[in-house]
Amino acid sequence: MSDYNALMAFVRETEALSQVAGRLGWDQETMMPDGATPQRAEEHAAMASVLHARHTDPRIGDWLARITPETDVERANLRHLRRSYARTVKVPARLATELARTTSLAHRVWAKARAEEDVQSFLPLLEQVVALRREEAAAVAGDTDPYSALLDDYEPEATGDGIATLFDTMRPRLVALRAAILDRPAPPALDGNFDHAGQLDLARTLALTFGYDLGHGRIDTAVHPFSSGSGLDVRITTRAEATDPFNCIYSTIHEVGHAAYEQNIDRAYLLTPLGAGVSMGVHESQSRIYENQLGRSRAFCGWLYGQMRDRFGDFGVGEEGFWALVNRVSDGFIRTEADEVQYNLHVMLRFDLERALIAGDLAVGDLEAAWNDRFAADFGFAVDKPSNGVLQDVHWSEGLFGYFPTYSLGNVYAGCLHQALRRDVPQLDAALAQGRTAPATDWLRENVQRHGGLYRPAEVITQAAGMAPTAEPLLDYLEAKFGAIYGL
Amino acid sequence: MSDYNALMAFVRETEALSQVAGRLGWDQETMMPDGATPQRAEEHAAMASVLHARHTDPRIGDWLARITPETDVERANLRHLRRSYARTVKVPARLATELARTTSLAHRVWAKARAEEDVQSFLPLLEQVVALRREEAAAVAGDTDPYSALLDDYEPEATGDGIATLFDTMRPRLVALRAAILDRPAPPALDGNFDHAGQLDLARTLALTFGYDLGHGRIDTAVHPFSSGSGLDVRITTRAEATDPFNCIYSTIHEVGHAAYEQNIDRAYLLTPLGAGVSMGVHESQSRIYENQLGRSRAFCGWLYGQMRDRFGDFGVGEEGFWALVNRVSDGFIRTEADEVQYNLHVMLRFDLERALIAGDLAVGDLEAAWNDRFAADFGFAVDKPSNGVLQDVHWSEGLFGYFPTYSLGNVYAGCLHQALRRDVPQLDAALAQGRTAPATDWLRENVQRHGGLYRPAEVITQAAGMAPTAEPLLDYLEAKFGAIYGL
Repeated sequence: MSDYNALMAFVRETEALSQVAGRLGWDQETMMPDGATPQRAEEHAAMASVLHARHTDPRIGDWLARITPETDVERANLRHLRRSYARTVKVPARLATELARTTSLAHRVWAKARAEEDVQSFLPLLEQVVALRREEAAAVAGDTDPYSALLDDYEPEATGDGIATLFDTMRPRLVALRAAILDRPAPPALDGNFDHAGQLDLARTLALTFGYDLGHGRIDTAVHPFSSGSGLDVRITTRAEATDPFNCIYSTIHEVGHAAYEQNIDRAYLLTPLGAGVSMGVHESQSRIYENQLGRSRAFCGWLYGQMRDRFGDFGVGEEGFWALVNRVSDGFIRTEADEVQYNLHVMLRFDLERALIAGDLAVGDLEAAWNDRFAADFGFAVDKPSNGVLQDVHWSEGLFGYFPTYSLGNVYAGCLHQALRRDVPQLDAALAQGRTAPATDWLRENVQRHGGLYRPAEVITQAAGMAPTAEPLLDYLEAKFGAIYGL
Repeated sequence: MSDYNALMAFVRETEALSQVAGRLGWDQETMMPDGATPQRAEEHAAMASVLHARHTDPRIGDWLARITPETDVERANLRHLRRSYARTVKVPARLATELARTTSLAHRVWAKARAEEDVQSFLPLLEQVVALRREEAAAVAGDTDPYSALLDDYEPEATGDGIATLFDTMRPRLVALRAAILDRPAPPALDGNFDHAGQLDLARTLALTFGYDLGHGRIDTAVHPFSSGSGLDVRITTRAEATDPFNCIYSTIHEVGHAAYEQNIDRAYLLTPLGAGVSMGVHESQSRIYENQLGRSRAFCGWLYGQMRDRFGDFGVGEEGFWALVNRVSDGFIRTEADEVQYNLHVMLRFDLERALIAGDLAVGDLEAAWNDRFAADFGFAVDKPSNGVLQDVHWSEGLFGYFPTYSLGNVYAGCLHQALRRDVPQLDAALAQGRTAPATDWLRENVQRHGGLYRPAEVITQAAGMAPTAEPLLDYLEAKFGAIYGL
């Protein structure tokens, strides 16, 4: 067997084990009996230990040193494997173990702190997490920027400076758009109760409408919607809250975007580094374009309103009113509940704070005050309690520094892709108005999804959009859409 | 860390990985989308490879050589670990790999052969499986009996000769009882349709009635009912066929017997060799006593008949008639559908044939004829097609030689335990008549289940029953019960 084939056989087995570990997570959120928690922790730890040993296996280094790739696929596989192995060997085993243990503990303490609105109880552990991640960043970055070293793990080749520049171009137009919208009378909020079974039935219809393949996936309910798995087994979850059917509808479409990306990757890449979405940003571009540019479009909302009426009866707002309802902009504390306009402002706040934490320019003890000051400055009203402020997101407790900006990067990529899609498929609205998304999802599969990890993140977007990614298409789209809804 | 603690930490992690691999099997039978099959095969293979490497890790041999156990628990753990490690190192890696590959293939070929009634297409692979298992048996047995070496893997310290002697004592009384029953007019078979939801609701009620802990388990549907997992996460499945509610009822109670054994083991043994049922025979004794001695008792059937009437309406046979219906004895080809009297005759047929195969006294090419001859001699009518004969069971395709006798051993153990239970709990029928099984299940938990792997199989039965296991209690019970039903 050639060195390349030997390496790939090893990698393929490792990827299969990663899928098993991932499915264990899925099971925990959907199927696991409550009393199994302590045993499950040992099962997770055992799988993590097996995977860590494989990721740091010195044979990988030997193979990589000997292989000269010969095809584009080989070159792309080697690019991924060299990246991740180089990163892995720079992090001492002691640090990896401490990070795993500390974030696991911090996650539990954070959940309790959030429930009890008690920031102080969380800070000592957050301090440890920040210190460990700074140590990791320094080890990986060498002479380069530590924050970028963390970001690079989620979005290869992105940098802190690049994101900061991007956000500088976005911020003024988003702030202006937000101010103009909030200056107008808000459409009334949705009122009523929407039964559980009807919502789940609609979720299933929507998943199929957006091309989700139930032969290679399944839909269950969970506290937090998510997509899980790669290749031939990509599962999603949703949830139904009686007073908020839009939560069920748009989380489902969002997760289908993630899942369809995984399901539509070229099958030849199964269980290799090319067989999964190439970055968090590109992943989020798929979930966002499904959810927002398609799912919240005027044309699709016309069809969706009919689906709602069929299941829940008429609630008398008309198609235009329904579209406005779905795209309602109002003050709020919570990032995950934010509309398309304000969402990126929530991300920018987190990006600046976490970058300062990792740079050592902000102490963990000063984080809450910094959050509250920045929130008041950006949103014009005060945080009322920690669960609406610095404790609202799970990410930092899990050590996810450098992750938040990939959400906005996803929005930016989605804006670019949407512009190209509209150019290539001029009749798209006629299809969406009939609940047919295939002209859009086929275009995305062909231009983005099928490539998996073959190209770099910025490359795959550039090729598909016919331009290097910038924020302009997203901002143009937001100004046009919300201008129409709010009569700006 | 002491050698003992180091060994146990390693074993605990291995057991956690085994639980993960087992849950992957559960997922495949209950949740997995159809299209995931090829990927799942790679996931299973990857887990098997990880587990094989751990089971054969030479550090285990070093630890075992250095440790002197100091407590009963340490001695019992070491007994299990020495047994399994000694066995593992005797089987060459090449043979283990070939067995895994051949049985995996043979299983698929068997399923197709059974569906197509085509014995010949299965024989070449069965020949390979038998040859590989004979090779394994010879490697493990050394100078001792090869068949016993296979049997010992499922029932530690049982031997082929011991089973043969046991069966010799059982056969005449079972044959006589069967003949006497079939000489009497059979009660009418059950007639009617029983809705799916009602059956599953009854299954859930029965599971809870028999003490199944849903905080550490769950109930789903699958093509073949099974119990899966140890410790804090023990899941069962059931099925519902419209015309045969007894299938749903008694498979559920049977699987609850297996699951309750696992759930009720002392929590101190979690993820150690003591934290699982000690042998297939003892496991089967729990499923059988739940299903038969309790679930098919006159007293419990009175309560169950009320449950049936509540859900499906009266079907006019009365409690006595219902009891006779549940215990109906009639001619049949299929082991898994056999009543308590004939079941062990089906096992004896398989035991004699597989022992001859492993001894080299029966060629695979002669197996079908040998089966058909023996079946006609034992049951008095001819096998009509291979799926009712030699192709009916999955076991041999999976290489499970030496497994069948543990079913009858379970029945024998259940007979002994039942005799002692009745002696210790004279008021049991009064409880069962009200659907209360706790006096029996508490007794079984206290005397058998909680010990897990602490004692040897025959030891735990001897201690609980107050006698070394023999077939007499089972045979006395069967003659008394069926004598009453059939007026013998």
